[in-house]
Amino acid sequence: MEQDIATLWSHALENSKGISLQKKLHADIRGGILDGILKTGARLPATRALAKRLGIARNTVIEAYDQLIAEGYLETKRGAGTFVSAMRPDDFMTSSQGENTKPPRVVTAKTEPMQLSGMPALDQFPNQIWARAASKAVRGLNADLMYHRDPLGYAPLRQNIADYLKASRTVVCSYKQVMIVSGLQQGLFLLASSVLQENANIILEEPGFIGMLAAARATGIPISYTAVDADGACVPQKSAGLLVTSPSQQYPLGYTMPHNRRLALLNWARETDSLILEDDYDSEFRYAGRPLNSLQGVDGGKRVIYGGTFSKSLFPAVRMGYLVLPEHLVNRVMAFRSATDSFPAITGQLALNAFMESGEFSKHIRRLRKVHARRQNVCAACIRQKLSPYFNLQPSDAGLHLLLRPTTALIKSGITEDIWVEAAYTAGIGAVSLSHTFNKTKPEHGVLMGFANMVDELIEPAIETFRKNMQRETGY
Amino acid sequence: MEQDIATLWSHALENSKGISLQKKLHADIRGGILDGILKTGARLPATRALAKRLGIARNTVIEAYDQLIAEGYLETKRGAGTFVSAMRPDDFMTSSQGENTKPPRVVTAKTEPMQLSGMPALDQFPNQIWARAASKAVRGLNADLMYHRDPLGYAPLRQNIADYLKASRTVVCSYKQVMIVSGLQQGLFLLASSVLQENANIILEEPGFIGMLAAARATGIPISYTAVDADGACVPQKSAGLLVTSPSQQYPLGYTMPHNRRLALLNWARETDSLILEDDYDSEFRYAGRPLNSLQGVDGGKRVIYGGTFSKSLFPAVRMGYLVLPEHLVNRVMAFRSATDSFPAITGQLALNAFMESGEFSKHIRRLRKVHARRQNVCAACIRQKLSPYFNLQPSDAGLHLLLRPTTALIKSGITEDIWVEAAYTAGIGAVSLSHTFNKTKPEHGVLMGFANMVDELIEPAIETFRKNMQRETGY
Repeated sequence: MEQDIATLWSHALENSKGISLQKKLHADIRGGILDGILKTGARLPATRALAKRLGIARNTVIEAYDQLIAEGYLETKRGAGTFVSAMRPDDFMTSSQGENTKPPRVVTAKTEPMQLSGMPALDQFPNQIWARAASKAVRGLNADLMYHRDPLGYAPLRQNIADYLKASRTVVCSYKQVMIVSGLQQGLFLLASSVLQENANIILEEPGFIGMLAAARATGIPISYTAVDADGACVPQKSAGLLVTSPSQQYPLGYTMPHNRRLALLNWARETDSLILEDDYDSEFRYAGRPLNSLQGVDGGKRVIYGGTFSKSLFPAVRMGYLVLPEHLVNRVMAFRSATDSFPAITGQLALNAFMESGEFSKHIRRLRKVHARRQNVCAACIRQKLSPYFNLQPSDAGLHLLLRPTTALIKSGITEDIWVEAAYTAGIGAVSLSHTFNKTKPEHGVLMGFANMVDELIEPAIETFRKNMQRETGY
Repeated sequence: MEQDIATLWSHALENSKGISLQKKLHADIRGGILDGILKTGARLPATRALAKRLGIARNTVIEAYDQLIAEGYLETKRGAGTFVSAMRPDDFMTSSQGENTKPPRVVTAKTEPMQLSGMPALDQFPNQIWARAASKAVRGLNADLMYHRDPLGYAPLRQNIADYLKASRTVVCSYKQVMIVSGLQQGLFLLASSVLQENANIILEEPGFIGMLAAARATGIPISYTAVDADGACVPQKSAGLLVTSPSQQYPLGYTMPHNRRLALLNWARETDSLILEDDYDSEFRYAGRPLNSLQGVDGGKRVIYGGTFSKSLFPAVRMGYLVLPEHLVNRVMAFRSATDSFPAITGQLALNAFMESGEFSKHIRRLRKVHARRQNVCAACIRQKLSPYFNLQPSDAGLHLLLRPTTALIKSGITEDIWVEAAYTAGIGAVSLSHTFNKTKPEHGVLMGFANMVDELIEPAIETFRKNMQRETGY
């Protein structure tokens, strides 16, 4: 193995005229890992030995190693050396390039549009691969697993999630802070029910996801709201509570929270002794540029609880998501979960763990990112071309839905929002109204249109039908 | 592989003077499996070939194999030979083999016998058949199922459960009243949180299952208690509320509620406008006579919510149970579930549905009933034979645990209940104290001893160790 690595690198270094040796060494090790030549768990040569063998300065090797460790490609084990990590940071950061992305077997077409505007491309789900992972996992069911009763969930899965979040979202955590939940609604419910002080509010974004509102209401804890501007959630007026926010891509308005607002929120949380639930519901799906770091990572996981879901990266009925809890809150949330829902089921956890372990999860995310980006582009182009008399499209390069706001002409026509949504819905488009995401303040009107689960060939005809419906209703 | 096995055994047999060859061969194969030298799925040599190679009689090999098959260490596959099983019977009794049976990345290791005294015979679970059902189900995952979002659960499974309950427990219901929950703790939590009137109490049996107490406490609703006599739960003093009762077999005292008490409870519920949650947690396991009808059936499903679980008929980590709700309560409980936990995961539901559909579920119940009855008999006989100086065994022909109450001599000895439990526990018996099931009133003392998950051959040695431990502690 060491011989292989040395040969690979010697060859690479021969062709490296004009580039810094460290940069080249870094790039070649990274390339070797991504090409599968350096496999997960492979032990790297000691820096001194490698430097000597390659005839370069030891510091060059150390710096290249350090950079790869920081990026998550390599990891050190105390006293044992440096190894190729199980995780590939790039898996989670960029769309796949030049990889075999042949779509899996197309699933049966649906006869009605998906109700939710946040549905991923279910036709891209690799059923057979998932089934293999699930079958393999379930065949390994033994007494320990049949009895497995950890209220936080199955530890190997939590470890895989922690690794994934560290690499892709700069979340700061160990698996001991990860709790498997059925989704972010359960996450909010368990968290708010178990950790909030007397007199604390749950503070929701307005507008926001009604599912989270329902979960907040079910706790019986008073709810207040904070407005959303172009920087995302505003710093709450209320002095203390649990703020639920979606900084990566505000739902439904789509704004990404800039760094300054993030710092202001963290500052508010510190000063008021509040907590923040970072609802990172679809952060996997950013189609341009680098994703911002998670708020939890900036905070260091002291006041921010990070929450994510597999509803969008796999499929909604898989019913698995996770909270990353600050250490000092783990026991309280766990006790409440244990009392009210015991512990999560092993079957789905084993399947998901096998799916992540095998690398299929990150492959699937890359494939989805590419397909979603394409569908978003096609959709946006069609909307601009066909629907401009009725709607202005809010620009977006992330997520699973587009936001269409009415033109002045449409408003003047007097045709109401429910008719717009109906016009989209009957055209086979998963559409919901913007107004339903407002709870307290005067609602804005618009159409939230899911694009990710629309098969490419059906996008143009569906939007054309939407246009015809709008034309019929408005008369222009 | 065969060569390795032969070498291992040859060596072992060289040192086996004075012990029966069969016993030694049995012990060494078992040891090899437990030490991980003989791995799951490894094919064993044919009996004839092995006998020849070891220079021993073929019958000696056959008998050793047969014993290991009976104990679950080996299994035969038709026409293919004899293999090391995936299951380790000893897993279920003790934890000392944990090093070898621990899945590679499990971080938290079990270091104790099964905590609960209500564990079914996990060694009897038909893993391969379940795995086939689960695999088949998951291969059929289509877009409709990936999106399936019924807060009550997957309708075909609910239909199968309704059919099963009608046939086996005279429950009166349609599938529209069946809600899949993660277990009865979630069932109680959802129900009490969503349907109780202001000022209503949750009324629990005293003594009772602490898991239900934890779920009740988590609702924040005031809790009161009703005593248990030889007819089960007494008619509550408090005027109105949700009474949680286990009439089939009171937990932990084991009493079955006679018809008159059932009528009295139903009468109380009608007069006070109260509800009753019938916790039918292990009604599958009645070993003599016909089971009484469900309380829900007597009531006609008007005031009684019937609750059951697959934790005992399948395995605890499957996390599926059900409520049968009176029609007029369905919407309220469903709304609360939808807000706080959305809907149950499809993967486990599909597997269970296929398992029920194929008839394997009822086959498994029949098998379990037989095995449990046998283990209960063996256990009871051993206890009477060995432990009578210390404990009086409460007669039982149902359930998954036995109740041992102290003799006058034991009480006089001054040795406390925690020592009794420890004496059982360190003998590898899943034992818990009776006193922990009391919350409000002066606790009674005793040992709740799980018998169902004890492999037959280990019952006598375990109880003998228990006896020795008791003798050492008491000095008599």
